[in-house]
Amino acid sequence: MRARSAAPSERTRVKRAHECGAYDRGTIDAILDAGCLCHVGYVIDGAPYVTPTLYWRDGDRVYWHGSSASRMLRASEGTPVCVAVSHLDGLVLARSAFHHSANYRSVMLFGEAVKVDDPAAAAAHLETFVERLFPGRWAELRPMTDRELKATTLLSIPIDEASAKIRTGPPKDDEEDYGWPVWAGVLPMRTVLDAPLPDQRNPDGLLPPRCRLPID
Amino acid sequence: MRARSAAPSERTRVKRAHECGAYDRGTIDAILDAGCLCHVGYVIDGAPYVTPTLYWRDGDRVYWHGSSASRMLRASEGTPVCVAVSHLDGLVLARSAFHHSANYRSVMLFGEAVKVDDPAAAAAHLETFVERLFPGRWAELRPMTDRELKATTLLSIPIDEASAKIRTGPPKDDEEDYGWPVWAGVLPMRTVLDAPLPDQRNPDGLLPPRCRLPID
Repeated sequence: MRARSAAPSERTRVKRAHECGAYDRGTIDAILDAGCLCHVGYVIDGAPYVTPTLYWRDGDRVYWHGSSASRMLRASEGTPVCVAVSHLDGLVLARSAFHHSANYRSVMLFGEAVKVDDPAAAAAHLETFVERLFPGRWAELRPMTDRELKATTLLSIPIDEASAKIRTGPPKDDEEDYGWPVWAGVLPMRTVLDAPLPDQRNPDGLLPPRCRLPID
Repeated sequence: MRARSAAPSERTRVKRAHECGAYDRGTIDAILDAGCLCHVGYVIDGAPYVTPTLYWRDGDRVYWHGSSASRMLRASEGTPVCVAVSHLDGLVLARSAFHHSANYRSVMLFGEAVKVDDPAAAAAHLETFVERLFPGRWAELRPMTDRELKATTLLSIPIDEASAKIRTGPPKDDEEDYGWPVWAGVLPMRTVLDAPLPDQRNPDGLLPPRCRLPID
């Protein structure tokens, strides 16, 4: 069974607008699976760094990867990280500036970033990443070489110390402001995929893969 | 003159794919101005935190705000932060898994988060935020109260220790892979605004504001 509840830790307990907080795996997984860009936070010499990178979920862990020479990967391996995934769903316009807001779905994960050491395991995880976005593509690609695997580092953290935060719906104004003569409502935002741009050097007759993003 | 060049510091110098790095203010400002969601990284008890929040640029600084009770704002005021702004522009599909990539525009800013202490200055900054997104809206809103201003904290950092990183264009495959019989190219991604959803309690005859997002 995928869905389960966990009591929040002190740092995952949603404090502001706590009624928007959620801690169940069904909610967290759905937000993670709806995107592919995360922001990884880590610490070097006591100072915070935030790096955007692609990620994917596989069961109870979130993975990301990059060049083995990457500062982000080298600095965060074996250390505490915070991974944030955020989808901005709309701008919320109220009658007062104060009650303007945004609709969003976000997840924060905390944990120690663990490196995938076994090359065969790393290759299997990369296959999962490609297949999650483009079902059937891995088998069509030029196979990965040992040199390429060595040049790639994969990190992951468990989906364990985790929270979701969601806002949906119309603005919430002070009761006495509802008659104020200004337009209020939501401007919905969404990420779309445009028509594929084939590479100029493609052989004739090839079709673009089906992409499972946005996955919602 | 807005555009200027600055030598990168050790932590803003783009290391991986350094040919994608840029440090000029024109490039950095254009990326900042194209969005409204940033990820703020900060440190509490040595551990990294990343919080998504709305931001805006005003001249040489980037601002964000929230409830005065916010953990993120209280923990990051007066401390080093890293602010990341990232636009994912497309998925880049190569002939090998290794050369798959993403097209994106991103900015990383480092600096000490400074609080806006003067209430009049804070109100002026909030006006800038609203006007940047919705020109003409501030004057139409129910005016902000002192209590609301007190309940709002604004932080900012200078656009000073900053770098941009951009990838555009088709995949770059190994020369011997270009004949491999798999579709390669770019799946462009983009954020769109859908039709405004008026609040059910709007008085009749009001029109939604013009929104300057996506600003590109």
